[in-house]
Amino acid sequence: MGVSDLYFPDEPKGPSMKTKCPGPETEAKLAELSTVFDTKNAIFVADFYNSLGNYICDADGNILLDAYCQISSIALGYNNPELLKTTKTKEMSVALANRPALACFPSTDYYKILKEGLLSVAPEGLDKVYTAHTGSDANEMAFKAALLYQATKKRGGKPFTKEEKASVMKNEFPGASDMAILSFTKGFHGRLFGSLSTTHSKPIHKLDMPAFKWPVAPFPVLKYPLEDHVEENKEEEANCLKELDHILATYPHQIAAAIIEPVQSEGGDNHASPTFFKGVRELTKKHGVLMIVDEVQCGGGGSGKIWLHQHYGITPDIMTFSKKMQNAGFFFHDPAIAGDTPSRQFNTWFGDPSKALIARTIVHEIKKNHLLDEVTKTGDYLYSKLDAIRKKHLKLMLNLRGQHRGFFVGFDLPTVELRDKFIYTCRQKGLNLGGCGDKAVRLRPALVFQPNTLIFLPKLWMNPSRLLNRLQTGRIYKIN
Amino acid sequence: MGVSDLYFPDEPKGPSMKTKCPGPETEAKLAELSTVFDTKNAIFVADFYNSLGNYICDADGNILLDAYCQISSIALGYNNPELLKTTKTKEMSVALANRPALACFPSTDYYKILKEGLLSVAPEGLDKVYTAHTGSDANEMAFKAALLYQATKKRGGKPFTKEEKASVMKNEFPGASDMAILSFTKGFHGRLFGSLSTTHSKPIHKLDMPAFKWPVAPFPVLKYPLEDHVEENKEEEANCLKELDHILATYPHQIAAAIIEPVQSEGGDNHASPTFFKGVRELTKKHGVLMIVDEVQCGGGGSGKIWLHQHYGITPDIMTFSKKMQNAGFFFHDPAIAGDTPSRQFNTWFGDPSKALIARTIVHEIKKNHLLDEVTKTGDYLYSKLDAIRKKHLKLMLNLRGQHRGFFVGFDLPTVELRDKFIYTCRQKGLNLGGCGDKAVRLRPALVFQPNTLIFLPKLWMNPSRLLNRLQTGRIYKIN
Repeated sequence: MGVSDLYFPDEPKGPSMKTKCPGPETEAKLAELSTVFDTKNAIFVADFYNSLGNYICDADGNILLDAYCQISSIALGYNNPELLKTTKTKEMSVALANRPALACFPSTDYYKILKEGLLSVAPEGLDKVYTAHTGSDANEMAFKAALLYQATKKRGGKPFTKEEKASVMKNEFPGASDMAILSFTKGFHGRLFGSLSTTHSKPIHKLDMPAFKWPVAPFPVLKYPLEDHVEENKEEEANCLKELDHILATYPHQIAAAIIEPVQSEGGDNHASPTFFKGVRELTKKHGVLMIVDEVQCGGGGSGKIWLHQHYGITPDIMTFSKKMQNAGFFFHDPAIAGDTPSRQFNTWFGDPSKALIARTIVHEIKKNHLLDEVTKTGDYLYSKLDAIRKKHLKLMLNLRGQHRGFFVGFDLPTVELRDKFIYTCRQKGLNLGGCGDKAVRLRPALVFQPNTLIFLPKLWMNPSRLLNRLQTGRIYKIN
Repeated sequence: MGVSDLYFPDEPKGPSMKTKCPGPETEAKLAELSTVFDTKNAIFVADFYNSLGNYICDADGNILLDAYCQISSIALGYNNPELLKTTKTKEMSVALANRPALACFPSTDYYKILKEGLLSVAPEGLDKVYTAHTGSDANEMAFKAALLYQATKKRGGKPFTKEEKASVMKNEFPGASDMAILSFTKGFHGRLFGSLSTTHSKPIHKLDMPAFKWPVAPFPVLKYPLEDHVEENKEEEANCLKELDHILATYPHQIAAAIIEPVQSEGGDNHASPTFFKGVRELTKKHGVLMIVDEVQCGGGGSGKIWLHQHYGITPDIMTFSKKMQNAGFFFHDPAIAGDTPSRQFNTWFGDPSKALIARTIVHEIKKNHLLDEVTKTGDYLYSKLDAIRKKHLKLMLNLRGQHRGFFVGFDLPTVELRDKFIYTCRQKGLNLGGCGDKAVRLRPALVFQPNTLIFLPKLWMNPSRLLNRLQTGRIYKIN
């Protein structure tokens, strides 16, 4: 009996499609919703009341196996009974009805909630937390922390000058900082103005937005299968590190921090080796730059470790999280990152106790039911199945990646059109997948995804030459 | 019987102080919490389980009348029974256990929740909503909407150029925009990197942060009492409008939008007349600039109208909200503000159905129990009481403002030190107040604040010369 049966004895045995997806009821509901809300990005309308475990129900009653999970945000499956229990506690009611301004009026139980929950899975050495509201927000708070840390250090105890105080009110140097946050090509760190300045996934995410001219270092572009490109990939990573070293040494302004995803998700499921990440850690230390690891999408257990960067044996200065934790924020250790002056790192809500309660339950269940082991096992199974398919269809399934990274498995199709059609076709068959990058398919199921839920996946590939042919001739929508 | 008795038959009859505040239990809890969380801004640790209505309980069992309410965020009083009911519904459980990525997979009931809740109090003419996560986030999404709107208009249907797509990945013009968001002196719009660039409340909020060099127009500095400075204030506002006109006409880059608070809250409870706001509306129209009204702190009924700008008879292009609505986002009308391309205004969560459910109940209660009328009545009573005190103590209580603006009543003390001591002293007496600006005291109670809860306030002033004397000699902490 798998962990999915444990939570969801009534989980559907497989997908069940009544209409195309999006179907007529989704279309009707979107037409209604679009009169008041932006639905341009909608895939389908979800019926969360009737979703269960790994299966999401749509407005038309279609039941899909969900390997995308609200863009990697569902940790324990839909309507997990333990989470539902948490939503019905007195603690939750009080947290929801009395949302505190946590920086000014922290609640009597916030320490306990954090300690039993999020902090119990804090990466080793990062034992303090700032709670925030979204992944982007967590990243921007981390940028601010790094900037305050470096500026305070540079100032060496001297008070702010008159000139600083006057110039900052006009957004001018020296009060407004000329320090920078370094990021990597193809990285994605959010869409607020600071985080968007570090995002380089796609032009459409950034066009027409003002941005800070901060430095960008190259993220390795590896070739697959890894075993066939050992030397090339080693060289690629060495070159990227060399370029990073050069930028850190020569950039005309101080770089406060470098931010990096342990696997670039939105940018295309781009992996790099532990050696590369260790190199980044060493170079940031060498140049006195803080290292921020963005675990917004990678964190929370989907890689088989609670934080993906733990596969690399590094300790960053700051690690941000969100999505699967259903809470956002960052972990750190050095007390100087919290600064020495009130009113600098500050906002009204400073997190949300109701989200901290949800996170506590998620963490508790991950530990109690050994979900990380489950993810590792299922991820390896999934990878091996996909690799077997890949070997048969070398021109169709490209760059399979993410071995031994749990569910962080992705692959490319030959073109963006084929990728989009592939995902659409899978959805018609009852499998909800996500795309990323230019032509990648990414898997982002919940931690309760089980090998048996994958059985039907290869069926899509059963007649791959027919599939490929249809993909190429644009008749994919009619495939059965 | 007042509305507060209706919700809270067991509400305390007055404050009750057992220890100083912060007391020993708060200190112990902060010492514990500070090992893992930033407590530098903490005022006291709150016991939300034992808070009720207008009264907040602290960790030491002190019960304070709360006229600050989590920095203006509590709408219906602590542990409001109707809100508690909402927290226990199936809708809430499902919303919390299955947080959707609303842009991609909106829930079957989101239209109904928005329509019955937030949209039922949308300002006239602004009939669509983007939901967001915090006030700062709502403002930045509004900036992005304005920038996309103006850029799309300027481009006139032409596709993005190769140069734009290449330059934007390096955060360079022309792909990265050189358009600006105009803001006003002393304004506060949040602390993310874009919103902080429009914030000009205090240097400490901004120092050491990179900022966009966007234009700043003067917000009027009015003299009080208004009736004694009619001509001067008229001239001040006319001069500010003239300067705004000049900036809008001559700024070297296109200004996409101007953002303004209907009462500048964090910056010092700075009011301006309806004439001024009408002037801003006319000038923004004249120059083709969108007007964003930031109701993050002002909105939600505290002014006696659901949105404070409705006192001025204007309709902005975009209006942002958060705090009292326990949800964040912005209202708008022009469909072009939502853009015509997916993936531009986008983020994973795109709001939170659990917060939309809370907002729906708040809106429902405001209407059902005529809370806006209650606020108007209580606000007028409060203002008249404070004005009577002011007239007796002209050197102590300065610039009383906010007549006929419900609870948006504020006043200055002669210095920041006296203001801080005044607030501290009130807290020892069982009244929780907030400061803002340089030396202002602001009132931000919940909508269920009642005249009888204010009776004890004047007692603080009963011997004002003694109070003033003590304030000045620094012996304020011992006052009885």
